[in-house]
Amino acid sequence: MRPSVFFYLTYALCVCLGLLCLLFVTYWNSHWRGGFSWDGSALQFNWHPVLMVSGLVVLYGNAAVVYRAPFTWKQKKNTWKLVHAGLMLLALLLSILGLCAVFDFHSGSHIPDLYSLHSWVGICTVVMFTFQWVLGLAGFLFPCSTTWFRSTLKPVHVWMGKAILVLSLTSCISGINEKLLLTLSGEPYNSLPEEAKFANSLGILTVAFGLVVFGILSRNKWQRPDTDSESVHVSPFCY
Amino acid sequence: MRPSVFFYLTYALCVCLGLLCLLFVTYWNSHWRGGFSWDGSALQFNWHPVLMVSGLVVLYGNAAVVYRAPFTWKQKKNTWKLVHAGLMLLALLLSILGLCAVFDFHSGSHIPDLYSLHSWVGICTVVMFTFQWVLGLAGFLFPCSTTWFRSTLKPVHVWMGKAILVLSLTSCISGINEKLLLTLSGEPYNSLPEEAKFANSLGILTVAFGLVVFGILSRNKWQRPDTDSESVHVSPFCY
Repeated sequence: MRPSVFFYLTYALCVCLGLLCLLFVTYWNSHWRGGFSWDGSALQFNWHPVLMVSGLVVLYGNAAVVYRAPFTWKQKKNTWKLVHAGLMLLALLLSILGLCAVFDFHSGSHIPDLYSLHSWVGICTVVMFTFQWVLGLAGFLFPCSTTWFRSTLKPVHVWMGKAILVLSLTSCISGINEKLLLTLSGEPYNSLPEEAKFANSLGILTVAFGLVVFGILSRNKWQRPDTDSESVHVSPFCY
Repeated sequence: MRPSVFFYLTYALCVCLGLLCLLFVTYWNSHWRGGFSWDGSALQFNWHPVLMVSGLVVLYGNAAVVYRAPFTWKQKKNTWKLVHAGLMLLALLLSILGLCAVFDFHSGSHIPDLYSLHSWVGICTVVMFTFQWVLGLAGFLFPCSTTWFRSTLKPVHVWMGKAILVLSLTSCISGINEKLLLTLSGEPYNSLPEEAKFANSLGILTVAFGLVVFGILSRNKWQRPDTDSESVHVSPFCY
């Protein structure tokens, strides 16, 4: 099979799993958890899993692999840097909105913030993501960035990109598990009611999506060939 | 800084974090959870986190990076393949023992098995790890393995190796979170008692260890140079 065909098949799997994640997380929160609102109630909390799975996992994962699509390799790298940065910014904003949803709900229900391991890992994820985005902007899109800074930053950026995905998956799985442990009471979690089966399946789909993204990222043959310069336009104002 | 010095500093960090994980998980279960026994009681359960963190994370992570130490590069690759496979087998056996601990405890306390998302992800991790080990043995150590099979298997083996580490971290974090949610009652989890702070810190250390392992694995300069052949001795009985 030609490498590009294998890539597009894997990418199609990635897109399908991502869409299934969005569908499952939305259906779970609308069908079993009562739907959505933005009023400090439990219905506001329901935005939290939806926004975190959408932003921190699905959009983040798709933004991470944009450079790998062979059809982009003949186009200018700077264009795809902007697409990558734009999608990542959207992912970051959705994640921050997801945090606002849970903090507002906690405030309205007098529940302490940031006590569980899920929340500790989750907040580290968003802080690291923000840091990565700002550093990426400064290093790869800011016109005054030096070649030395960019070449030093690149392996750190690649490693942090994967690290954030690991943290996102860890946060999402521990979060879904926590939500089910805290809320299923009539039919407890250990009797595995329909909702538990459905939300557990969402967790498995989320992990599967993440692992396919890792698969795409770790295959050297699918890396964009380094034919065009990575240098950005250096503004005369930088001197 | 010379690459090998930077490697050994990073590896020292990896070893320190791994030892801290072992210390923290053992202290948590002996000081706050009553210690250990093998009698179907809650004290048998306490082996579960200790064995999973030791086997599935710390030993697994160390086994994954053995090829990266520059002092091994002048030695025969087959020797280090055996070290890698031996450490991985030990990690797998500890993980299976960790599963036995929790299944025995569930059986003794009439708690259903495999209901939570943590347990679904955890069982997938151990199944995938077993599959990876058997496939690795067949592909890279079995004398009759063909060059085609080995070269096809290698990228899959590398991807699955990272995927198992992601799943291990996800399982451990969701597991520590689940244990604290289910057991802290006198001083509930959301009041963040000493035990919660300590076990949350164990979770953060576990994730930090995993991310350092990812850092070592993702740095191309630290890959063993492909100077010696990867071919294994082909036995005449294979023909």
